[in-house]
Amino acid sequence: MNAPHDPSSVGAVIAQKARFDKPLRLKGGAELPAFEIAYETYGELNAARSNAVLVCHALNASHHVDGFYAEDQSNIGWWDNLVGPGKPLDTNRFFVVGSNYIGSCFGSTGPASPNPASGKPWGADFPVVTVEDWVEAQARLADHLGIERFAGVIGGSLGAMQALQWTLSYPERIRHSIVIAAAARLTPQNIAFNEVARQAIMTDPDFHGGHYYDKGVVPTRGLRIARMIGHITYLSGEAMAEKFGRLLRRGVPGFDFDVDFEIESYLRYQGDKFSTYFDANTYLRITKALDYFDPAADFGGSLSAALARAQAAFLVVSFKSDWRFPPPQSREIVRALLDNRRIVSYLEIDAPGGHDAFLLEDARYHNALRAYFGNIEL
Amino acid sequence: MNAPHDPSSVGAVIAQKARFDKPLRLKGGAELPAFEIAYETYGELNAARSNAVLVCHALNASHHVDGFYAEDQSNIGWWDNLVGPGKPLDTNRFFVVGSNYIGSCFGSTGPASPNPASGKPWGADFPVVTVEDWVEAQARLADHLGIERFAGVIGGSLGAMQALQWTLSYPERIRHSIVIAAAARLTPQNIAFNEVARQAIMTDPDFHGGHYYDKGVVPTRGLRIARMIGHITYLSGEAMAEKFGRLLRRGVPGFDFDVDFEIESYLRYQGDKFSTYFDANTYLRITKALDYFDPAADFGGSLSAALARAQAAFLVVSFKSDWRFPPPQSREIVRALLDNRRIVSYLEIDAPGGHDAFLLEDARYHNALRAYFGNIEL
Repeated sequence: MNAPHDPSSVGAVIAQKARFDKPLRLKGGAELPAFEIAYETYGELNAARSNAVLVCHALNASHHVDGFYAEDQSNIGWWDNLVGPGKPLDTNRFFVVGSNYIGSCFGSTGPASPNPASGKPWGADFPVVTVEDWVEAQARLADHLGIERFAGVIGGSLGAMQALQWTLSYPERIRHSIVIAAAARLTPQNIAFNEVARQAIMTDPDFHGGHYYDKGVVPTRGLRIARMIGHITYLSGEAMAEKFGRLLRRGVPGFDFDVDFEIESYLRYQGDKFSTYFDANTYLRITKALDYFDPAADFGGSLSAALARAQAAFLVVSFKSDWRFPPPQSREIVRALLDNRRIVSYLEIDAPGGHDAFLLEDARYHNALRAYFGNIEL
Repeated sequence: MNAPHDPSSVGAVIAQKARFDKPLRLKGGAELPAFEIAYETYGELNAARSNAVLVCHALNASHHVDGFYAEDQSNIGWWDNLVGPGKPLDTNRFFVVGSNYIGSCFGSTGPASPNPASGKPWGADFPVVTVEDWVEAQARLADHLGIERFAGVIGGSLGAMQALQWTLSYPERIRHSIVIAAAARLTPQNIAFNEVARQAIMTDPDFHGGHYYDKGVVPTRGLRIARMIGHITYLSGEAMAEKFGRLLRRGVPGFDFDVDFEIESYLRYQGDKFSTYFDANTYLRITKALDYFDPAADFGGSLSAALARAQAAFLVVSFKSDWRFPPPQSREIVRALLDNRRIVSYLEIDAPGGHDAFLLEDARYHNALRAYFGNIEL
């Protein structure tokens, strides 16, 4: 935890919102008449406006990347271990922007926001948004902040998909893209896990076809199952074995359906917690954005052809124990970039944390990011 | 499909039931006052009673191993490709017994059976049963059939756990144990998948704490999710990629929550189908039996010590693409048997079918089983 006087913390931060009244045409054909983006910034934009780095978040995170809130000092940003004064992404040098994607339940316009057509929450009528749409919305935010070109864009998992898509949607606006624990497209197995999570939510009787906001209920049962499934895929089998083994909570088997193994207790806890604060309609849309992301699809399946328009330099990082987006999927991105003679650094880290390793501190990982950011000229 | 005149089919078979009125004391401490076992037999028991082979089934199967029913010829036994006249487990030579475990919903006494104490279905009051309990019940069946010693016991997955446990519970009654796609204990990741499935069932409002039989409902939503999760773990990622890829059912993304990818359609279909015929209370108990199985637990975690009392010869088979019970878990069994100087053959097959490969036809697999059974002296 970072106390207010911790010199490696950016300290107290303030979440902001930017409103955009020009409609946003979405990839799926729908139009968002107006929208807000919740964001935070850390550090100072330099006079040349050349030191901005955009941080894109994954499923269960937000624009609150760094620091804490004065009114709730225990609410530390999700990537505080990486971003801050003197940290690998050094806020003494860079102007860091954390942006919440549209469709979220953490501040940006999403399914729980009022639908201007009715004044009631959008609910099921909120459109399906894509990674491309998120980048479009973020580009508006960049304009709003006066950032013509980012020194870098960085993200892990779904955030990495955004970091990659930025180099395709706006090649000239990104100098460096840092793509961590990523995939250029989901495998059918990935999609299958997402689909089970969606079905758990959608078949929860409290889902009401997505219009539950005015019913006084939320589909907590479905969200809970969705989160439990997700958690299994975020952790490596070896990390689970290391952390929980076959330890029994009551010391002996209960021969009943209460918690027996520690892993059960952990999953139930994670599921319960998540279901109290995450929005089911957002969950459905995020998993769809993951499923749909496939830049190669418009190029006959050729990722090399798809990435030809990228101009950025890249750092790609994968983790050996990540079985959700395993290293071969990162290597596929690296190969496609090399096919296009792009500047690429690739790092494959033998860390045990599974997919979640991108959020954890690891000296090799953080040193590599420190070195990479240190070499970016401003 | 086997037509009635197919010489490689055992033809029409009849399911039988044996009733046991002596109470069965279960590992968890409860007592089953009386019970029935559903079973089928194929081939003839020889005069020496030396040619019996017991087939143990896994989660979603039954005593209906082979042949078909005269009244429903499309209902082919689940291991008909392996068992039959001239097949690898040759019913011209062996007397094959398919036995349904207790707690099942397919004929043996289970949660839907009447509780003698109340005359109503057991429901939630049906005890948690274990692999050891199943073997005890099967031993009663063996006595009933006049089989003092089995030439072999064979099973895949949960069936393999029974095949292994038989050699520990009744070492002198098993000459050969064929242990396929097995694990000597579940990993925390395995347990985690089971736990999510259980939670999906138990939080279904139609579950009613397990007493749903007299409510006119069944927890189909939960069963459906449980089955979808299970299916993901039965198939290998590569088999899914091969079979479904990222094919879209409607050709283009729907930007909605109907079926987009073919894998979604497949999973929904499998989940729907399963939820119409499988009993939720049985599902809960089977996954518990899986979770609890751990013969090494009583020997300080040493599988070698646990298997010291086995006298059988073993054939252990694993499949490289099986990520539910991957080859290292089979090798652990092999090593423990070799530590005890048991006779062991081990076969690791590079088949793409994942965990389900044990049910599929593969020439290397079937030839190995054919050779193994062919070498068993009667």
